[in-house]
Amino acid sequence: MSVEILGLIAGTLTSVASMPQLIKVIKTKNVEDLSLLMLVILICGLSLWVGYGFLQDELPIILSNAFAVLINVCLLIFYFRFKKNNKTRLI
Amino acid sequence: MSVEILGLIAGTLTSVASMPQLIKVIKTKNVEDLSLLMLVILICGLSLWVGYGFLQDELPIILSNAFAVLINVCLLIFYFRFKKNNKTRLI
Repeated sequence: MSVEILGLIAGTLTSVASMPQLIKVIKTKNVEDLSLLMLVILICGLSLWVGYGFLQDELPIILSNAFAVLINVCLLIFYFRFKKNNKTRLI
Repeated sequence: MSVEILGLIAGTLTSVASMPQLIKVIKTKNVEDLSLLMLVILICGLSLWVGYGFLQDELPIILSNAFAVLINVCLLIFYFRFKKNNKTRLI
């Protein structure tokens, strides 16, 4: 297996990893056990990866991380929508 | 800001993102809202990134992803330890 294909598979997996979590949240409407701070840090980090991809002109980095940002922003929106406890905890 | 520093900050953020989730799980002992499939896909993807780092001889990629694998394997262990519903759902 070439290194590029390995990187491609790795990038695809880490990009789509949040999809099942998003599906679970939409189905169950429960977000109590999710960490808000995790979502915030992840969205910041992934957004910086998108910027890095633009600066390096690497489309795979831009696309995979932009997709992951999209999913995690959706998760963040659902987090505030479905959060039952009014006292939002950062962790 | 140089591209390398941007990548370094991005990599650090995406690597440590799962830490607050791990702390939350240890504190609350609740994992019902976490997606098992997310953890499995993430660990597979991050492990492939470690392999990619070894093949490319890029220590930052190896270290940041190995750290993320470690945190997510801990999350997976706690998932099975704290899961209350005996019927484990993949998503």
